Amino acid sequence: MLEQLRQALGSGAVVTDPDVLSAHARDEAGLCEAGRPTVLVRPADTAGVSAAVRIAAEHGVPIVPQGARTGLSGAANAVDGCMLLSTAALNRVIEIDPVNRFAVVQPGVVNADISRASAEHGLRYAPDPGSFESSTIGGNVATNAGGMCCVKYGVTSEYVLGLEVVLADGEVLRCGRRTAKGVAGYDLARLFTGSEGTLGIITEITVGLQPIPRDALTLAAVFPSTAAAGRAVTAITAAGVVPSLMELLDQVHLRAIEDYRPMGLDTKAAALLLAASDSGVPADLDEIASLCEEAGASEVYRATDAAEADALLAARRLAYPAVEQLGTVIVDDFAIPRTRLADALDGVAAASKRHGVTIGVIAHAGDGNLHPNIIVDPDNPSSVAAGRAAFDDIMRLAADLGGTCTGEHGIGLLKRDWLAAEAGEVGLRVQRAIKDALDPQGILNPGKVL
Amino acid sequence: MLEQLRQALGSGAVVTDPDVLSAHARDEAGLCEAGRPTVLVRPADTAGVSAAVRIAAEHGVPIVPQGARTGLSGAANAVDGCMLLSTAALNRVIEIDPVNRFAVVQPGVVNADISRASAEHGLRYAPDPGSFESSTIGGNVATNAGGMCCVKYGVTSEYVLGLEVVLADGEVLRCGRRTAKGVAGYDLARLFTGSEGTLGIITEITVGLQPIPRDALTLAAVFPSTAAAGRAVTAITAAGVVPSLMELLDQVHLRAIEDYRPMGLDTKAAALLLAASDSGVPADLDEIASLCEEAGASEVYRATDAAEADALLAARRLAYPAVEQLGTVIVDDFAIPRTRLADALDGVAAASKRHGVTIGVIAHAGDGNLHPNIIVDPDNPSSVAAGRAAFDDIMRLAADLGGTCTGEHGIGLLKRDWLAAEAGEVGLRVQRAIKDALDPQGILNPGKVL
Repeated sequence: MLEQLRQALGSGAVVTDPDVLSAHARDEAGLCEAGRPTVLVRPADTAGVSAAVRIAAEHGVPIVPQGARTGLSGAANAVDGCMLLSTAALNRVIEIDPVNRFAVVQPGVVNADISRASAEHGLRYAPDPGSFESSTIGGNVATNAGGMCCVKYGVTSEYVLGLEVVLADGEVLRCGRRTAKGVAGYDLARLFTGSEGTLGIITEITVGLQPIPRDALTLAAVFPSTAAAGRAVTAITAAGVVPSLMELLDQVHLRAIEDYRPMGLDTKAAALLLAASDSGVPADLDEIASLCEEAGASEVYRATDAAEADALLAARRLAYPAVEQLGTVIVDDFAIPRTRLADALDGVAAASKRHGVTIGVIAHAGDGNLHPNIIVDPDNPSSVAAGRAAFDDIMRLAADLGGTCTGEHGIGLLKRDWLAAEAGEVGLRVQRAIKDALDPQGILNPGKVL
Repeated sequence: MLEQLRQALGSGAVVTDPDVLSAHARDEAGLCEAGRPTVLVRPADTAGVSAAVRIAAEHGVPIVPQGARTGLSGAANAVDGCMLLSTAALNRVIEIDPVNRFAVVQPGVVNADISRASAEHGLRYAPDPGSFESSTIGGNVATNAGGMCCVKYGVTSEYVLGLEVVLADGEVLRCGRRTAKGVAGYDLARLFTGSEGTLGIITEITVGLQPIPRDALTLAAVFPSTAAAGRAVTAITAAGVVPSLMELLDQVHLRAIEDYRPMGLDTKAAALLLAASDSGVPADLDEIASLCEEAGASEVYRATDAAEADALLAARRLAYPAVEQLGTVIVDDFAIPRTRLADALDGVAAASKRHGVTIGVIAHAGDGNLHPNIIVDPDNPSSVAAGRAAFDDIMRLAADLGGTCTGEHGIGLLKRDWLAAEAGEVGLRVQRAIKDALDPQGILNPGKVL
């Protein structure tokens, strides 16, 4: 197989160096096993991806697609004996159509580079996962990534117009469209979006672009209790005002950030809510501020210019590096109906207490999407066990609150059991039927998702 | 089979009266054949739908799901010997959650009734197909319907959070979620949306609601040429201002409307563009007005209040009844990149001339989605033949302009050949594989879409 691969892709694109293979064996998920790959291939074009898939299929070798390996669910982790198929070398912005507002890009393009390439036309690619300066659009599409602006602008799948996908038999499928609307046949582009490499390898993506929004007005509200913060989020949502960002940091994060980079945060507060509005209507932020005050905010601070707004958001950006100072972080992810935010925060705090493990929560509060960051000491088995137990409690909490086990990070290896519980027997059977129809040999990212 | 159905559903829900069957044999599509149904069933709940499907499957009888039969592609047309399965009796609004902003509804609820039921909470269900006072949400979801507000607010699929679906074997699938975000497993809700009853029967829908927008400011711009109207649409799109409505009427429609209900329209104009903005920023409509003038509008008229805005939109609402005065209308539907609007209008005009058949165009111009209304005399075979030839020319035109054969009406019977051309061999094979996986017996709306 290796010789066939070298002939098809050139020997520079076929890597068997054990150190390189080991370095590519996993993504950034905690709690996930990774197998030992046989080979890493880095094709430079669709034909190369197709050739690699055909060769793997001929030999019955499992294929694990990879982008930047910034994923948080183990979807890009190696399985034993697999071919790691990196799309990192397919990294060209092929076309930007500023008037029809789409970009055609290869999967290895970094998320933020699409917006940079579109900026001269006054356009951007909206979805902004935390990893937007490192994760690639192929992985964003494969996991249907979210981000901070999604509360107003929606997630990745709402921007995927068309895809080119190499199927399990090496055939190349083109699906979707370049038009704003279209309903011809089953929505295959949507089916592949979020399928985590289990149905095909994405080799080209047509993404919708949108006008760069007006400058946002931003505020920070300090809450003495999670209940008050939850009331504020509920009230803002119920009022019909649509913030362009609504993020929450809990006390664990406020303290971690203040220890890491003192910036005057109130470390006695239960939660800090950051909200912004780019509607162009100043009264909208006034309304958000009033609703925070009515809900019980102890302080509401409004940025007076873009520099101050950036300063407010700096706390959010420091959240992850700050908690990383406390130990190894298991990043969890779940979503609940927005009205259950306080219940979700209290439930996570209870799990933290129950298992004696530190858990900080950052939340895309406007979407009801929470990220409990569980801090463990990887060298201490009882700490890891406590973290895992808290993780399981949090997954049960998500289900109990009418939510889903993943809002934006995906299933991968990490949450297969929780998907099974959430989808139910009929749902799993339908998902399995689709998987079997498109990958009868079962070689595409086996053991992931299902 | 009839006896089994009567036992399962009650005899009132099982109809074999030939007149009733005949009245239910087709939807509103032109150019489509309809077969002779064996029975019409009207179950009142999910269990009834499931029972009917199981009985049909046992007897190998094809099932054609129907809602209000307002479809325009023949997807609801009977096939010979089929069971027509109407979901019209499943017509309850089950739940409205105003804070989490969703409604749970049965498929037989009329589109506009969802917004009426939500209005007391300041919410609406956005997608607004022309048929919104008669079409049902089940059919809207089955065809992924569009509408006038989609240029800003998106189509049906962007509002489908969760579905309950009766599968081909009678099993009941629940998929999707009640949360704003969620990426657990394949996006089955999206796969069923737009599948036109070929993968399952939708029995419950969780739709996202949104705040009722601010009152829109509206203008009408008169253009002396299609090229100038096309330039205006391109300029508005390129400027990044997002209208909440941008509709175009061509000269054929302006004349038909003026003949039907004189309202002072300029019947010498090549096109009338109606545009609205509900952004709350008055400068946005100013900008749209300026761009129309710069593109060559001979007149731009701005409504000064809501009543005047309604009067401007009245012309759009009269478009269809007005052209119906000219003969039988074959409603076509295609979408092209927005920049090709003038080319599309000119291409339709050329097809009209070539085949000596009257064709008026109304367009969701902001989406590049055109509806050529082809006027034929159904009693004159050569008129029908000319209409069909023009229809085929328009489908070729859509493909030549980089577009899709249907922007919002679906494939049904009408456009199977055009879907096959657009999807290509690999695309069709994948669609067929999914169909076979979910409906191995091939009893769900056979012969539709694929």
